[in-house]
Amino acid sequence: MWLRISCDLTFDITVPTPFVLMLRPRSGTQQWVAYEKYKLVPSVPVFEFTDNYGNLCQRLIAPCGEFAVYTAAEVMIADYMDQAQGGAPFVEIQNLPDAVLSYLLPSRYCESDRFCQMATEITAGQQLGYDQVLAITDWLRASIRYEPNNSDIQLSAIEVNLRQRGVCRDFSHLGIAMCRSLSIPARMVVGYFYGLELMDLHAWFEAYVGGRWYSFDATQAEIKSGYVVIGYGRDAADVAVYNQFGSPLYPTSQCVRVQRIKENNMFFK
Amino acid sequence: MWLRISCDLTFDITVPTPFVLMLRPRSGTQQWVAYEKYKLVPSVPVFEFTDNYGNLCQRLIAPCGEFAVYTAAEVMIADYMDQAQGGAPFVEIQNLPDAVLSYLLPSRYCESDRFCQMATEITAGQQLGYDQVLAITDWLRASIRYEPNNSDIQLSAIEVNLRQRGVCRDFSHLGIAMCRSLSIPARMVVGYFYGLELMDLHAWFEAYVGGRWYSFDATQAEIKSGYVVIGYGRDAADVAVYNQFGSPLYPTSQCVRVQRIKENNMFFK
Amino acid sequence: MWLRISCDLTFDITVPTPFVLMLRPRSGTQQWVAYEKYKLVPSVPVFEFTDNYGNLCQRLIAPCGEFAVYTAAEVMIADYMDQAQGGAPFVEIQNLPDAVLSYLLPSRYCESDRFCQMATEITAGQQLGYDQVLAITDWLRASIRYEPNNSDIQLSAIEVNLRQRGVCRDFSHLGIAMCRSLSIPARMVVGYFYGLELMDLHAWFEAYVGGRWYSFDATQAEIKSGYVVIGYGRDAADVAVYNQFGSPLYPTSQCVRVQRIKENNMFFK
Amino acid sequence: MWLRISCDLTFDITVPTPFVLMLRPRSGTQQWVAYEKYKLVPSVPVFEFTDNYGNLCQRLIAPCGEFAVYTAAEVMIADYMDQAQGGAPFVEIQNLPDAVLSYLLPSRYCESDRFCQMATEITAGQQLGYDQVLAITDWLRASIRYEPNNSDIQLSAIEVNLRQRGVCRDFSHLGIAMCRSLSIPARMVVGYFYGLELMDLHAWFEAYVGGRWYSFDATQAEIKSGYVVIGYGRDAADVAVYNQFGSPLYPTSQCVRVQRIKENNMFFK
Repeated sequence: MWLRISCDLTFDITVPTPFVLMLRPRSGTQQWVAYEKYKLVPSVPVFEFTDNYGNLCQRLIAPCGEFAVYTAAEVMIADYMDQAQGGAPFVEIQNLPDAVLSYLLPSRYCESDRFCQMATEITAGQQLGYDQVLAITDWLRASIRYEPNNSDIQLSAIEVNLRQRGVCRDFSHLGIAMCRSLSIPARMVVGYFYGLELMDLHAWFEAYVGGRWYSFDATQAEIKSGYVVIGYGRDAADVAVYNQFGSPLYPTSQCVRVQRIKENNMFFK
Repeated sequence: MWLRISCDLTFDITVPTPFVLMLRPRSGTQQWVAYEKYKLVPSVPVFEFTDNYGNLCQRLIAPCGEFAVYTAAEVMIADYMDQAQGGAPFVEIQNLPDAVLSYLLPSRYCESDRFCQMATEITAGQQLGYDQVLAITDWLRASIRYEPNNSDIQLSAIEVNLRQRGVCRDFSHLGIAMCRSLSIPARMVVGYFYGLELMDLHAWFEAYVGGRWYSFDATQAEIKSGYVVIGYGRDAADVAVYNQFGSPLYPTSQCVRVQRIKENNMFFK
Repeated sequence: MWLRISCDLTFDITVPTPFVLMLRPRSGTQQWVAYEKYKLVPSVPVFEFTDNYGNLCQRLIAPCGEFAVYTAAEVMIADYMDQAQGGAPFVEIQNLPDAVLSYLLPSRYCESDRFCQMATEITAGQQLGYDQVLAITDWLRASIRYEPNNSDIQLSAIEVNLRQRGVCRDFSHLGIAMCRSLSIPARMVVGYFYGLELMDLHAWFEAYVGGRWYSFDATQAEIKSGYVVIGYGRDAADVAVYNQFGSPLYPTSQCVRVQRIKENNMFFK
Repeated sequence: MWLRISCDLTFDITVPTPFVLMLRPRSGTQQWVAYEKYKLVPSVPVFEFTDNYGNLCQRLIAPCGEFAVYTAAEVMIADYMDQAQGGAPFVEIQNLPDAVLSYLLPSRYCESDRFCQMATEITAGQQLGYDQVLAITDWLRASIRYEPNNSDIQLSAIEVNLRQRGVCRDFSHLGIAMCRSLSIPARMVVGYFYGLELMDLHAWFEAYVGGRWYSFDATQAEIKSGYVVIGYGRDAADVAVYNQFGSPLYPTSQCVRVQRIKENNMFFK
């Protein structure tokens, strides 16, 4: 399946502001980026680096005035999401790859050290591994009210659990916290999702069971294809799409689009 | 200055338990490890890897029964700690090295996104950079009661600030959270400190000002030499000396020693 | 300066062939990739990874029949190349960054361990550092005949020095070998050059003096802007634009273009 | 099996000389370093870093006069070397891990791009994979005269093949070059070997077949346990035990010891 995705952001800058942007999807095992644009108006010097999670980050200083970022890509993804119908086993700690271990640790918005009892109850009776994560996402769907518009400050899993409502990011944080509390590595993913009702950037999570990462999204009734990844991290702190490290600055406009395209209708024919 | 440090831990294991230990100090720019031992009784296979922060981590499965870990090292450190008497300037975000940027982000026990106002007030009137961190450590010394013995569960900076008392780890978390809220990169350090009153492993923090990392320790009246680093991280979640990823397991005995030695009195003469 | 670069390759595949391609320029401190395309006909799964040098590499299996790779990008580069008019000092080994040290070692096509005497003679009387590298490139221009078309097998610096003629790659290998023999770190660069007489992919080299990398190109009369980097490495072995790890396979067609464009004439207006 | 290994080097320094040493064995999947010493006389500041291959490297400046390095370790290794009795299959390029790919490339002393025909002939009729590497080591044993004492300058695989004699390093280079020419990843290992006739530091190689690295040593009649690894690399250029990056400087004394010890006879009882 080919998707054309785009995210255009406009900021009103009153003082020259250093930005770290994470808006360039990478080709990897799950997606192939065949076309890509990344335009800044006005044009400013940009320095790109790879963070600890392999994400491409763009550093720049936004000058005073209107500052616009236009990004777009055409990406090939699989037609179907990998799911483990008959379950996928829990991986014993001693068998986890070194690089996966850090996704067991608690992080800013996923206080997994406080969710062990709750997660154990929610997953009671489930086969260890994939089915535990399914039980967690089922519980999230049933218990947390999805309010896509309501996204003021960043909440942690504990706070989300108290409020019982949240945006996609909040669902992910709570799901991740519960997985980790059961010693299942889990990580945050931000990106695009084709078919989102109120189109915007999206967040979901992945859990490591059966020797690989599987995607989970409790904001959707079922897991189906349509995801384009921008970045991975321990939680939202690691994968901010724009980070200005100063007084918070919100875009004056943000326009996200995801379209399905045919191969013969691509920009770069 | 040469220090001989050692940490012996004994666990009573009832079910084979995977461990990740972080007990091997590394030679680096701040310290030179000239002698080292790492003994496990009973002897079991160990796999060592380097984590994202450059720390050496040892993976093993502790068998049932008494399991003991004996580690020791002889380490050369500088006689005096680097301090910036006349201050050291704040480094603008755009001038920070890529690898330092992640130490600006909030983490599990350092909710820096919630401390901006408080840190701004505490550092009011200070020169930006080193002097701000000094003001923060002064505030910590004056405001938080140091209770070295009282260390049950891990508290976050917000919780420490509410309690107004804590152990070395708590002092570090609150200091780090305030630094980051002012866009000063800060990281947790665990290791040994020669001269600690109740000898134990210790925690302190570093802040990145004037183009380099400086050490700060609000649990001590002044900063003086005697520190041996075991590990660096964003907060205590990254630098657990022993991590069993299961139901928490505390050592039945823990013996930490730090002695000053003369070069002609070293083990390996 | 904005450049539009493209490289189209066609192969005639008789048996399914694993490829590692290095054809995606990266945004970095020297260049900003604002538009990019990477098209494969027929479309096959591709896995991208980052190699030890930070280059993006694309792994795929080319199916039988005609296999075409179309890549293009629009890249902003500086209008002028950085040059050190008054020289730039040699960096003492002990002051080189850790990551630069490996560029002092001999490599497959740069037998720097055999060029010390020759390089010392060629650079006699020069100020240590940048001026030594200038003397080496001057010597290359004067002594080695540039034959852009004659590129059969890969030659090493020793072989190039015996032949006294070569392609851009050969010039780079000999220049790198001599720099390293004088303890000046040097690395190979492959990419595009605007203004190349017989348009093709190009190779040049960088030397580390005065605390940074400078570009040198002995195939050109002078160093001027127009370079777009695809990859860095120790020598040509590290930066093959296409590598099939089997019996050598040459493209049935290879079309490289570099045009200067105006910002208002870009694809992604 | 526990081994006590030591390497003492003495240099006569006439001008302060920057060194990069690689003398600290690391704990990993193959060996566990339980005791270690690293002493410099006179004592000088040392900075340790990890190179691209995961080896620990020590940077220092040796002062004028006699400069001595004393290193020792007690290391646990497996009692038996892993061997693939019934063979281990060749791994198709497309299935090799990303990190292994670079061990297919030619390197300074392993001109694998020139050995394809020769290696194909030597391994004719063999099952692809492990058995090909066995055939190569058998050929090396039969064809190259082992002269442990004769080690002046570094020779490349081509030169070794012409001479038909060499030291352990030369055997490794030729073996590696032939493996890579058959698309079998191969890497150099330096370290200690218990049972070496003329005790010295040793070199051997590993080949990646059947999804893992296996050790091979054509200087010995058979592969048996006793190896302690100091470093891995593409060839000897990457794993110099001491590297001074200047005019070559040889130790005035070099003393290497490898003893088998019982666990109750260890230094650190």
